[in-house]
Amino acid sequence: MNSRKSGRRQFLKNSAALAGLAAGAIVPAGATPPAPETVEQLHAYGERSPFENWTRKGKHLWPPEGASGSRDYGFRNPIQHQLSMITPAPLHFTISHGHEPRNIDPAQHRLLIHGLVDRPLIFTLDELKRLPSVSRFHFVECNANSGPTGPAGAARRAPTATAQDTHGLTSCSLWTGVPLSLLLQQAGVQKGATWMIAEGADPPKHLKSIPIEKAMDDCLVAYGQNGETVRPEQGYPLRMIVAGWEGINNVKWLRRIKLVDQPYMDMRESTKYPSLRLDGNARWFQFELGPKSVITRPSGGQQLAGPGFYEISGLAWSGGGAIRRVEISTDGGKTWSDAQLQDPVARKAHTRFVFPWEWNGEEVVLQSRSTDERNEVQPTRDEISKIWKIDNDYYTTSTNLIGHFNAIQPWKINRDGSVLNALFL
Amino acid sequence: MNSRKSGRRQFLKNSAALAGLAAGAIVPAGATPPAPETVEQLHAYGERSPFENWTRKGKHLWPPEGASGSRDYGFRNPIQHQLSMITPAPLHFTISHGHEPRNIDPAQHRLLIHGLVDRPLIFTLDELKRLPSVSRFHFVECNANSGPTGPAGAARRAPTATAQDTHGLTSCSLWTGVPLSLLLQQAGVQKGATWMIAEGADPPKHLKSIPIEKAMDDCLVAYGQNGETVRPEQGYPLRMIVAGWEGINNVKWLRRIKLVDQPYMDMRESTKYPSLRLDGNARWFQFELGPKSVITRPSGGQQLAGPGFYEISGLAWSGGGAIRRVEISTDGGKTWSDAQLQDPVARKAHTRFVFPWEWNGEEVVLQSRSTDERNEVQPTRDEISKIWKIDNDYYTTSTNLIGHFNAIQPWKINRDGSVLNALFL
Repeated sequence: MNSRKSGRRQFLKNSAALAGLAAGAIVPAGATPPAPETVEQLHAYGERSPFENWTRKGKHLWPPEGASGSRDYGFRNPIQHQLSMITPAPLHFTISHGHEPRNIDPAQHRLLIHGLVDRPLIFTLDELKRLPSVSRFHFVECNANSGPTGPAGAARRAPTATAQDTHGLTSCSLWTGVPLSLLLQQAGVQKGATWMIAEGADPPKHLKSIPIEKAMDDCLVAYGQNGETVRPEQGYPLRMIVAGWEGINNVKWLRRIKLVDQPYMDMRESTKYPSLRLDGNARWFQFELGPKSVITRPSGGQQLAGPGFYEISGLAWSGGGAIRRVEISTDGGKTWSDAQLQDPVARKAHTRFVFPWEWNGEEVVLQSRSTDERNEVQPTRDEISKIWKIDNDYYTTSTNLIGHFNAIQPWKINRDGSVLNALFL
Repeated sequence: MNSRKSGRRQFLKNSAALAGLAAGAIVPAGATPPAPETVEQLHAYGERSPFENWTRKGKHLWPPEGASGSRDYGFRNPIQHQLSMITPAPLHFTISHGHEPRNIDPAQHRLLIHGLVDRPLIFTLDELKRLPSVSRFHFVECNANSGPTGPAGAARRAPTATAQDTHGLTSCSLWTGVPLSLLLQQAGVQKGATWMIAEGADPPKHLKSIPIEKAMDDCLVAYGQNGETVRPEQGYPLRMIVAGWEGINNVKWLRRIKLVDQPYMDMRESTKYPSLRLDGNARWFQFELGPKSVITRPSGGQQLAGPGFYEISGLAWSGGGAIRRVEISTDGGKTWSDAQLQDPVARKAHTRFVFPWEWNGEEVVLQSRSTDERNEVQPTRDEISKIWKIDNDYYTTSTNLIGHFNAIQPWKINRDGSVLNALFL
């Protein structure tokens, strides 16, 4: 599947490559001894090694500490430990608004399609699973991922930030389900239906307004994730996958789709998600996520063992389609060279890139820059700040000042092999 | 990624499709209430829904009950519940020979490459992870998978067998690691090196003789599985992936690779894995697994709710390369029609196929037949039994009488909607 010949050549022709390999290298250790179990218990449903103990990390987002009301948490994917383009389901990031329904009985769950349709329909899970299905790799990314503002932004700005801190609100799965267009065609879309309201079965009844064009394009009513059923915190038993668009559109615990003639202007649509421009105006609806990338090895908090050969690797993605190119700079942005993209390269999905690199032991800044199938190129922080306000507090004013922050991420390697977040260095 | 237009059309033009959807359908229920946990505990490393409770199932393989010595177990993948071409890591089948090392400390583990090489090499995990990497989808399949002979064969022959019973010893993952050829080139392969002996760190020191041509072709020294590290029962921290070949070649807990000038004729190589022909001779080494497929929905033990539309879906794979075609028969083998292959279609990997089908409520036999990129076609049971002995007891004589049993799998749908294994009906 993968032709990495030039990378291998570069490694092989470097006679010092193996000499440079000292014990230690990048990954920090940490281990707890496992508890004894029977052979049958061990094999019913396997666990990872007790030596692999990284987890999602949670952050309190909203409201301010001490205030009343339900709590918002963001739990970030330890993306620097991810070894391919697939995010393991147990580590898929999640944003939770106070309370997640974890005990939905699939035999009782229903999906209602109504509003401006010829035939309102109700589906059970078993009925949906009888219909024509597709499986597609898609990322889901929170629009606040890697945003430098507000309380979450503080951890993201810190020189000690890891890739989990800076980019942990994106994940990629092989989603399986029924194309939404198929269900809507069965229901019969009426002429005035220009928007769709998707609603979840969570107690806050999260809902999202989505234009009908997108609903009829590539949305998926998903019951499967990476070969299993969708995980509880990802929306079990049903999640709307809105490929390439802000995470908030991917409604979890999906129970209702209503076709309507205008957006609902929900609280988050009207107060949290618009982006503020320098001229004081805001963009109210912004759906598609731009081209983005991050180097995960080496990345913040990791430690190089010493000069020698290292493969640089990371993830790139775009809401605009497939990633066509990833370039790497190992000299602070002066020169750029093409990385290799690893199969599978899917549309609106994470794509793994790799790049062979020889570290000479000097201070360097590593950066990656992605280009998607529309030839949109990932911008620098400076380019973004010419248009959008990136220096205000997220969640402390009425608008989300810096969603969609897809700036190039620089990592600085110090002479001692330590790696720092250099976005604000 | 996926063009399923003709399937959708067939579904849509059938005006009775939705009318035929009754509650109930295929999946059996079963549920336990979950225990309360904190938000942080719930989100550190997610669990599946308590309503999704299928597991691997273990079978005692060897020696006979009551005999002394270490025990062999086979734990089968519940393949009928798998929703795409990826097998979730916790459910990947495993064969265990008495004792699996579950506590290997990756910081202490080493990989030794020696024998007929210019430069013996020892690698730590951290060193391997610095080298050029690839990620590839590959299935791993036990050569005994779906074999009808011996104690495991009894469950496989039963009319009540599920797809887990008949085909549960195959699984597919996105494996990440270093190409073995790269490591061997660094070590310098000497002229007389015609075989490689791969050895694990398990107490029985499982080893396997592999021809050097395969070692230099597409073998992978894998540390990653589906984005995470390889699971303990799959060989953590290192597994040899020998794409498309009998599962036993994919040495787990890999610690040593020795280049030699002949195979070792290990106990299993000389007594368990040769295949007995009708003429009394045996084939001693048979590596590559032939084209195979199985319908997983509907499959044995499932229950159709009544006449109407059902998508038929399943998995196809071949050690010979990519799957090029899967055909479905819904009339007991009289006529065959092409199924649609779902992306990703990778070489030596499970490929998901789907086929739209309208059940009229009569008795029918469903079958799938795969063809690989070499135009090899999956055979029937009758075709296999013209050459190979398929009616003797596995493990009760000195040879494995029916490994590589890749016969077409027939499922019979009764008028009451029940589904039976029809291979020996």
